[in-house]
Amino acid sequence: MHKGFALWFTGLSGSGKSTLSERIHKRLVRAGARVELLDGDEVRTHLSKGLGFSKEDRDTNVRRIGFVAELLARNGVIAITAAISPYKETRDIVRSRIGEFVEIFMDCPISVLAERDVKGLYKKALAGEIPHFTGVSDPYEPPVNPELRVDSSSEKIAVSEERVWQLLKDRGLIPLSW
Amino acid sequence: MHKGFALWFTGLSGSGKSTLSERIHKRLVRAGARVELLDGDEVRTHLSKGLGFSKEDRDTNVRRIGFVAELLARNGVIAITAAISPYKETRDIVRSRIGEFVEIFMDCPISVLAERDVKGLYKKALAGEIPHFTGVSDPYEPPVNPELRVDSSSEKIAVSEERVWQLLKDRGLIPLSW
Repeated sequence: MHKGFALWFTGLSGSGKSTLSERIHKRLVRAGARVELLDGDEVRTHLSKGLGFSKEDRDTNVRRIGFVAELLARNGVIAITAAISPYKETRDIVRSRIGEFVEIFMDCPISVLAERDVKGLYKKALAGEIPHFTGVSDPYEPPVNPELRVDSSSEKIAVSEERVWQLLKDRGLIPLSW
Repeated sequence: MHKGFALWFTGLSGSGKSTLSERIHKRLVRAGARVELLDGDEVRTHLSKGLGFSKEDRDTNVRRIGFVAELLARNGVIAITAAISPYKETRDIVRSRIGEFVEIFMDCPISVLAERDVKGLYKKALAGEIPHFTGVSDPYEPPVNPELRVDSSSEKIAVSEERVWQLLKDRGLIPLSW
């Protein structure tokens, strides 16, 4: 029916990872796929409790999500992840362990994110009030060669969704009839 | 082909969880099942790094393994776990979250384990040198109503393997033809 693979969203807070990943998840569920979305709350509660924001802890978190995605993917399940996953090396380690790995880079300039600032976090971070805020007071290393780059400052979400969907078909990961 | 379920081994250190779970795992792999064995080393490296032996940390570990088993089982994969999982309430919480949950209680008296003492740990624990050693200096709450109890002090491993295998068939979890 479909392959097992990891659909790995990466990008800054507010860049649209959750929104887009949820749309793809719903669409896959409707199509009858075996799919899991490993997003913020569930991961924090069940996998990452006790971890903080140091490089080591962030890496542990990402590698742990990667481990679970690997178990799912190698058993024919689609694992969608939507963690910031700021470090390139760690993402690449996860990639190397998972047979089919599709990295979606949610690219949005800090200036746009700070202007939207849905959760009011960028204002605080830019004022120096949040010590480990990715993209402001903590590094974000963008993917060099992601399977897809989404410019979420300009692209409509429905268009991004279609591009991801088409990519999965083009790569033979989901049936063309979907 | 087969159902998704959790095959949950529980019992003291040295009671035979790893040995029996590995035999069942191999047999399922040979039969062509989608199956994962979540045993010691892999779990410690990938899921439980940083956790200790307090009740809270042990519970976190068991619930985390349970979460991964749940993700696998609900996608049609067989998840075999072989952690001590000493607390009844925690095992029961995991059970309640997973549709198909088969608990195998590896039952072996401390006296026998201390005599075998493959890793030399019981001697140390009984001498008071290991502060949180399950069954000696830390509690183990046996299952009240497990799907299967294995007396690993007297039963041959090949017999135990057959009993587990038959149980999975009896419950309709794997095909009768296996």
